[in-house]
Amino acid sequence: MTASHSERLARAALTRAGEPGDPRIAAMLAHAGAAETVGYLRTRSPVDEWGEAITSRLLAADPVADLEAARRRGVRFVVPGDAEWPGRLDDLAVAEGVADRTGPPVGLWVRGPLDLVEATRRSVAVVGARSCTTYGAQVAGDVSADLGEEGWGIVSGAAFGIDRAAHLGALTAQAPTVAVLACGPDRVYPQAHASLIEQIGQRGLVVTEAPWGSSVTKLRFLSRNRIIAALTGGTLVVEAALRSGALNTANWARQLHRPVLGVPGPVSSAASAGVHELIRSQGAGLVTRAAEVLEVLGAMGETALEQQRGPDGPEDALGVLDRQVLDAVPVSRPVSSARLARTAGVGAARTRAALEVLRMAGLVEQVEDRGWRLAAPAVAAR
Amino acid sequence: MTASHSERLARAALTRAGEPGDPRIAAMLAHAGAAETVGYLRTRSPVDEWGEAITSRLLAADPVADLEAARRRGVRFVVPGDAEWPGRLDDLAVAEGVADRTGPPVGLWVRGPLDLVEATRRSVAVVGARSCTTYGAQVAGDVSADLGEEGWGIVSGAAFGIDRAAHLGALTAQAPTVAVLACGPDRVYPQAHASLIEQIGQRGLVVTEAPWGSSVTKLRFLSRNRIIAALTGGTLVVEAALRSGALNTANWARQLHRPVLGVPGPVSSAASAGVHELIRSQGAGLVTRAAEVLEVLGAMGETALEQQRGPDGPEDALGVLDRQVLDAVPVSRPVSSARLARTAGVGAARTRAALEVLRMAGLVEQVEDRGWRLAAPAVAAR
Repeated sequence: MTASHSERLARAALTRAGEPGDPRIAAMLAHAGAAETVGYLRTRSPVDEWGEAITSRLLAADPVADLEAARRRGVRFVVPGDAEWPGRLDDLAVAEGVADRTGPPVGLWVRGPLDLVEATRRSVAVVGARSCTTYGAQVAGDVSADLGEEGWGIVSGAAFGIDRAAHLGALTAQAPTVAVLACGPDRVYPQAHASLIEQIGQRGLVVTEAPWGSSVTKLRFLSRNRIIAALTGGTLVVEAALRSGALNTANWARQLHRPVLGVPGPVSSAASAGVHELIRSQGAGLVTRAAEVLEVLGAMGETALEQQRGPDGPEDALGVLDRQVLDAVPVSRPVSSARLARTAGVGAARTRAALEVLRMAGLVEQVEDRGWRLAAPAVAAR
Repeated sequence: MTASHSERLARAALTRAGEPGDPRIAAMLAHAGAAETVGYLRTRSPVDEWGEAITSRLLAADPVADLEAARRRGVRFVVPGDAEWPGRLDDLAVAEGVADRTGPPVGLWVRGPLDLVEATRRSVAVVGARSCTTYGAQVAGDVSADLGEEGWGIVSGAAFGIDRAAHLGALTAQAPTVAVLACGPDRVYPQAHASLIEQIGQRGLVVTEAPWGSSVTKLRFLSRNRIIAALTGGTLVVEAALRSGALNTANWARQLHRPVLGVPGPVSSAASAGVHELIRSQGAGLVTRAAEVLEVLGAMGETALEQQRGPDGPEDALGVLDRQVLDAVPVSRPVSSARLARTAGVGAARTRAALEVLRMAGLVEQVEDRGWRLAAPAVAAR
């Protein structure tokens, strides 16, 4: 099963146009096809900063060159419709999101000898503090190796500390390991992990949704975390200080209704405080070893992927939330998207995404910087 | 509010007659008064080993002398009906029990300057491993001191390790602390804690249900644990190996529907394995400091005692379980209590307790070692 060449080219162009996890682009892709979305975005008259940026980047994109550069480096571009596209990623379509990022990735740049679906079918995200303790590194390595011995793959972010220990544990156990990066597929981050990431690329998989040539940003880390959570049957946090980035991955997993597990540590250790809080008040499960992880994931994690969804074609019908937003749009006097969000009772980011879909469908129009109102066909229908 | 002198004498005699936590004696006391129970047990024809032992010990008991010896040592005997009797203890009437032990204590020998109700109204049981780590002792001491600073009392068992650290933490904070012992009120256990227990007796309370002059036994430890759990708003386990005695106290707390909390530790520490298991699969809450304990207990623990029950007088009506057992007793051919338990769908220990109450009420009779059948009045009623 393979996506069409035009679909792949359009999606490659879209990775250049928007930031990873842009909910508006994700909503358009859910509503229309990639080629149609690209066509629309290229030609629509941009009335806001976001639109201007998207359109200009889209016009500058050269997806043929990107795909060729990728091919030369042994990187493939996996998109919905491909046999290697993990259906689990589509669950992100309904995730509420973090910092205005959500939705399935537009596509994934993948390097390595494994099949992404096979490598993640039975897999656990093992994440945690960059500045971990030796205790944390030890436990992360041991648990990952033990999970690997049981035939489970380990997905992490190739960062310092817990991530590194998790990947190494999996490599030791000759288990599949997947590093999801926040930079483009032609880069490595952190630079100090170049050889670790090279090793993972040779024996496991290195994956990113970030466009060719892009560097890391804070927002790209947050977006990257949703891929880690979405690819796996559950997320295990080994050490995390309060407000650690690893808790962000746990947050994504929770939004996806995937199990969130935590390894406890001494209450006197700041590196465990975030994990304790996760267990204490976020409902994460406490685990002390691999067998306990599998007690939870063995039952739930495996089945989640079995229901491999086919490539959901773009559906012309609007989603429930899109309709809710449409019902809130006034006939003549334009209102801001923030006000529409309040009226519709839909989140701000999702409202903006819905408005893009509705505009794409010709149902609403944006009046300079004054806001949104119904377009002629929708007025007639109302 | 004070219990009658005859009631107190009868209960003092009963502490000599049965083992702490004997469910049969507790059931009789719930059904009839203490004086009536003593009268019945003294005169009933003993048909089994248990009955023989009870009767002979009761005949040998000298409660007047025991109460006088206690008075001379500054020990008072607190019983239901006294203002100092904690109503919380009566919750034990419905606890399923452990190792055939359950029910409220017959009475409590109490030494120390505090009022038992006041000292335990806002209190936490802090228990754990005897062979604890320095980490565990540190946390137990700190948390107990912090709870003490917030005006909460600390109840524990004066054992080595966590118990000791908990009592010392409370003493440091000048907070009420209650040591519940498994030996008689004229003894101390462990001997090495003689001066700690002496200090608690001078500034807090030393409490036991075990009869005057008795030493510790394994069963008395298990029975003692139910008093620790029942006196407090919740039980906090700081360190406990798998199958540690401290988990037994947690088990009692759970049976009493009191919150059970645990302090995590390194997963590599055997001293924390029991606590992790408690959190992982028994639903205990994870806490890392005193404020988190009070988040749970402040809401639940305090109210539990507010509803100070008055002295539930003996009720002539049989309890639901007593009736269930009665309905299972055959008219003529005697059957064993084990078989009755199965037929009635009531636990073995509770069935034996019910049979004693039913015999006391003249409704059933025990036919030598052949078992139980209905007595004449019950046959007529059926």
